Amino acid sequence: MNNIAILGASGYTGAELVRLIATHPEMNIVALGADRKAGLAYGKVFPHLRHLDLPVLQKIKEIDFSNVDLVFCGLPHATSQRVILALPEHLKIVDLSADFRLRDPAAYKKWYGGDHAALELQKIAVYGLTEFYRDAIKSARLVAGTGCNAIAGLLPILPLLHENLIDSDQIIINLASGVSGAGRGAKEGMLHSEVSEGFHAYAVGNHRHLGEFDQEFSLAAGQPVTASFTPHLLPQNRGILATIYLHGDAEQIYQTLVARYDDEPFVYILPFGEASATRHVRGSNYCHIGVVPDRQSGRVIVFSALDNLTKGSSGQAIQNANLMLGLNETTGLQLAPLFP
Amino acid sequence: MNNIAILGASGYTGAELVRLIATHPEMNIVALGADRKAGLAYGKVFPHLRHLDLPVLQKIKEIDFSNVDLVFCGLPHATSQRVILALPEHLKIVDLSADFRLRDPAAYKKWYGGDHAALELQKIAVYGLTEFYRDAIKSARLVAGTGCNAIAGLLPILPLLHENLIDSDQIIINLASGVSGAGRGAKEGMLHSEVSEGFHAYAVGNHRHLGEFDQEFSLAAGQPVTASFTPHLLPQNRGILATIYLHGDAEQIYQTLVARYDDEPFVYILPFGEASATRHVRGSNYCHIGVVPDRQSGRVIVFSALDNLTKGSSGQAIQNANLMLGLNETTGLQLAPLFP
Amino acid sequence: MNNIAILGASGYTGAELVRLIATHPEMNIVALGADRKAGLAYGKVFPHLRHLDLPVLQKIKEIDFSNVDLVFCGLPHATSQRVILALPEHLKIVDLSADFRLRDPAAYKKWYGGDHAALELQKIAVYGLTEFYRDAIKSARLVAGTGCNAIAGLLPILPLLHENLIDSDQIIINLASGVSGAGRGAKEGMLHSEVSEGFHAYAVGNHRHLGEFDQEFSLAAGQPVTASFTPHLLPQNRGILATIYLHGDAEQIYQTLVARYDDEPFVYILPFGEASATRHVRGSNYCHIGVVPDRQSGRVIVFSALDNLTKGSSGQAIQNANLMLGLNETTGLQLAPLFP
Amino acid sequence: MNNIAILGASGYTGAELVRLIATHPEMNIVALGADRKAGLAYGKVFPHLRHLDLPVLQKIKEIDFSNVDLVFCGLPHATSQRVILALPEHLKIVDLSADFRLRDPAAYKKWYGGDHAALELQKIAVYGLTEFYRDAIKSARLVAGTGCNAIAGLLPILPLLHENLIDSDQIIINLASGVSGAGRGAKEGMLHSEVSEGFHAYAVGNHRHLGEFDQEFSLAAGQPVTASFTPHLLPQNRGILATIYLHGDAEQIYQTLVARYDDEPFVYILPFGEASATRHVRGSNYCHIGVVPDRQSGRVIVFSALDNLTKGSSGQAIQNANLMLGLNETTGLQLAPLFP
Repeated sequence: MNNIAILGASGYTGAELVRLIATHPEMNIVALGADRKAGLAYGKVFPHLRHLDLPVLQKIKEIDFSNVDLVFCGLPHATSQRVILALPEHLKIVDLSADFRLRDPAAYKKWYGGDHAALELQKIAVYGLTEFYRDAIKSARLVAGTGCNAIAGLLPILPLLHENLIDSDQIIINLASGVSGAGRGAKEGMLHSEVSEGFHAYAVGNHRHLGEFDQEFSLAAGQPVTASFTPHLLPQNRGILATIYLHGDAEQIYQTLVARYDDEPFVYILPFGEASATRHVRGSNYCHIGVVPDRQSGRVIVFSALDNLTKGSSGQAIQNANLMLGLNETTGLQLAPLFP
Repeated sequence: MNNIAILGASGYTGAELVRLIATHPEMNIVALGADRKAGLAYGKVFPHLRHLDLPVLQKIKEIDFSNVDLVFCGLPHATSQRVILALPEHLKIVDLSADFRLRDPAAYKKWYGGDHAALELQKIAVYGLTEFYRDAIKSARLVAGTGCNAIAGLLPILPLLHENLIDSDQIIINLASGVSGAGRGAKEGMLHSEVSEGFHAYAVGNHRHLGEFDQEFSLAAGQPVTASFTPHLLPQNRGILATIYLHGDAEQIYQTLVARYDDEPFVYILPFGEASATRHVRGSNYCHIGVVPDRQSGRVIVFSALDNLTKGSSGQAIQNANLMLGLNETTGLQLAPLFP
Repeated sequence: MNNIAILGASGYTGAELVRLIATHPEMNIVALGADRKAGLAYGKVFPHLRHLDLPVLQKIKEIDFSNVDLVFCGLPHATSQRVILALPEHLKIVDLSADFRLRDPAAYKKWYGGDHAALELQKIAVYGLTEFYRDAIKSARLVAGTGCNAIAGLLPILPLLHENLIDSDQIIINLASGVSGAGRGAKEGMLHSEVSEGFHAYAVGNHRHLGEFDQEFSLAAGQPVTASFTPHLLPQNRGILATIYLHGDAEQIYQTLVARYDDEPFVYILPFGEASATRHVRGSNYCHIGVVPDRQSGRVIVFSALDNLTKGSSGQAIQNANLMLGLNETTGLQLAPLFP
Repeated sequence: MNNIAILGASGYTGAELVRLIATHPEMNIVALGADRKAGLAYGKVFPHLRHLDLPVLQKIKEIDFSNVDLVFCGLPHATSQRVILALPEHLKIVDLSADFRLRDPAAYKKWYGGDHAALELQKIAVYGLTEFYRDAIKSARLVAGTGCNAIAGLLPILPLLHENLIDSDQIIINLASGVSGAGRGAKEGMLHSEVSEGFHAYAVGNHRHLGEFDQEFSLAAGQPVTASFTPHLLPQNRGILATIYLHGDAEQIYQTLVARYDDEPFVYILPFGEASATRHVRGSNYCHIGVVPDRQSGRVIVFSALDNLTKGSSGQAIQNANLMLGLNETTGLQLAPLFP
């Protein structure tokens, strides 16, 4: 049994970690940190989890980490790096913030607008895209979870860049995401009255997850790649669908993805010509990828669907934690999607 | 390991059974029956379950039941009794239809409009309200799952009638239910365009679940009880909230419910004065009951929230099957609710 | 043409006033007040109204009221009374806040928790329930719009109390309301992730609109009436459905309501036995009332559906303003509901 | 006053026509045709319109067209051409089906899979894209309404092809549409339980509205143009958002659209860099177009938002009918959007 602490437990990614760990046979939550809600029972903050026997929320600096094995850190960007810098050396850490995703300090500064406060940690952090960094994750002290949008684009595209199957100058990632990705903070734009019965794009051309696309695509292609990425907000809580327009041969792309993900426990390639749907992965750690040829020969549309709170953040975090703790990678993550 | 067959597997209650059994350590699905979709892979009918290794859908009469231990029957009302009548003797059966809920053939005819085709089975069927018929369920051959609305009213009210704490002539059950309770059949009234952004009552004063209220309330009170029951349709998929207006002492009612459900694994009594919410039980087998005093002394409002597809049907069915198979009652049912 | 100013124009009721006045042939918006958003174009605050030629938002104290005929005041409670107190004498005023709804200063203090700052105005304010105060409204200087929930209960019940057709000690108003009633303020509980796919009651037994029920019911009955009132939050933007449980004769109640509302332009009594639906009044000024007999003789369920932003506030406000300005009461209000 | 008949009045486009004509000062509905629902009051089929004084639904062949000026035809594809062929000569006709959108019989056969039954009418039909065929529409006998998706792509792209500002080989139209576009027919895939909380693409590469894109784009460009078009289904009732990826100069594209639509009453070009949102046009006849430069120079993302039932079909139909009847084009169409 591994003792777990969750910092930033009062947000949606925190609650999703608790939900998943509730039926994880090898993890035991011993501390829940949330500075502003310290002193509250967790069931007060998230009444859907009131049936669980959980520690009371604590201020982070009052947590006793001596018997903790691994920390999940669901704190806001910028805060996270400062808190992690102060954590005891013996802890394994999975960070769900953006603070350690970008390896290049200049890229970090470009996308997040300030100097990094923990440059030494940034150097040793491993990018948490399990399917591509599995071995490094197993021995990492600090793993940086991917952006929830980033993983939806990276999983289908990276193998194609590796194999040089697509024109790297013609990558368009059109993406739509559920509201829960915006977190539990009270913002006018996330009110039910504003979001429901509507659809729009945001952060066109300047979304921070572009930093991850640039980093990973360029590495895979062996040359700088500048993808186009347009996120939209869906009137639903969970789910990301990436609709990806590429120049390449559809059959070849399909076979490559089938071969690449054949052994992966959470990535499914749909039958050729079938499109993915977010409702088919809701609440689960699965990613469904579909390949459909465009009517113009030499072009293809690739769909990638996952749950932003599960495979996009907290499920992925547990998948990585399983590896870091020497557990079977799928432990506690085989919950079937909830539909309808 | 217990071998399980699901008849009527192509409906929502069938899919919910498969979802729950997917992580149930003591059940193994060996047959899936669905006459009209026979021959299809289950993942074709419910793509969210495509990652599971499941038998292909079969016509019911072609299923080999010889190695089956227990059958879940999610067929339509009236069909169910005929199919169950023809099943081999050795099978334990949990029926999710309405066919065996009413013990009195006259009551059955009144609410369902025809003669019962399996009167002998009707006699031995046990009503599947686990918290009140646990012992009989353990040794039953045939258990009849409760109506999803019925259980939401029965759990909070039955203990109060037993203890004679409320005026049995003043019971009002105002109830709102999610759309999934109407099933997967294509009906104009259940289209997204018709249901979303709207709310209305239906079957006012004549909903069939009244038959169950009459049967169980009268039994508990020792005299005929005629409750008022008004169901409404919510623009959401899952969840039932019963708002129950009673004449009685709020404190006494609260203490009685706390005592009655203290040992029950799936029924939670909220702190006095707190109201239940469907979002806090979504996708789980839990029922949250809240007691709030009315501003008029001697009157009280009791709230009861559960997921119609889980505690209201398929979760309850597995809970009962666990008992019938000699397993721990909670096995496979401790999934935390999905929120948001 | 009548010159109109709207104070508190940056909220949902303000936007609804602008939407309705946009096609009102006898009203012309000359000033829009919103202190915190002063200086912004209205289309910046509500882009759905960007096609309209409207004045820029101003601080209230900078508005020149000299050529204004009538002011709609959509400010928060407590603020409203102070602002209205300072308005020039020549203005007609329709207040959409709660500040002038309760005639008794003690009742105001009980429900709103403080002394009233404009007691003289409180005395002359007319309660804006058009169907019952039409004559007084015509000659009023200040009309106080009803609570959006209050009107949904008052319209069906008041005629029955007047005629002494129901037991005034047995009035239960179970009500469900859309999210827009909570306004545009950023609150955690109104986020899409919190509201959608869920349903719960709030303010059980202590909602402030009880003050209006007490005032109007007692007046109509000629004795103190204490109704039970339980509001719920619906996962939809617009719409209120009141499900009202009464003791009385269904046929008599039905005939009384038919006769009472026969000449009213916005109140429709559905055929006997039919229940109302919020989707059938969305975006319109209509109220649909249905009467269904309960299965217990001598009891009845009355349904009342309206749009909280239209008949529940801004549509009602314009209806009253039409009367105050000597216009036809229905001018600009005959937009058909939006469905689907 | 112009006498209007609506054929196929029992569908959503029929109801939307009735909603809009309800406040149209120059149109009067004298007949409503719907074969299967003949004999019913319109308020039985669409209770939200029960307050209107409307003719009872009739079988089409029983309608007396002698005093009718103009017919709106909202019948299913293929049925429409047969019905229109049999209509009296004196009638002006606006067809909302797909039957007369494609001028080339071969294209019709390719996309709709059969021979056209009214080739002579097909020749004289005018494509109902008002902003481009205004003069022809004024004198047309038969106008064919555009596809709801088609207009969302045509409005922003056609002026750019006319001016040769974009690479016609690099047009990607990623589109998301509300559920009401699928009509009121009972289909499993359009149930609330299936649609809500989910998002997916459909008809990838073979949606019939491609026939309209091919026809109009090629005409505008003076050479064959093959655009890529991927529609998605949104969990909302109304609204289409086209997200269009183009190769061209953003500033030049923006200025061209501003100039092109400056005088158009229903097309708004948002400030440079701003993206459109479906919620800002809900229930209205407006189209909001936004131009945002991509991070890659020489590429641009253009957004186009409209309501599929209004500007996408019934509002557009009335706009064209106004022209055919010699009325002001905007008559009855200036309703502001409904938000929230």
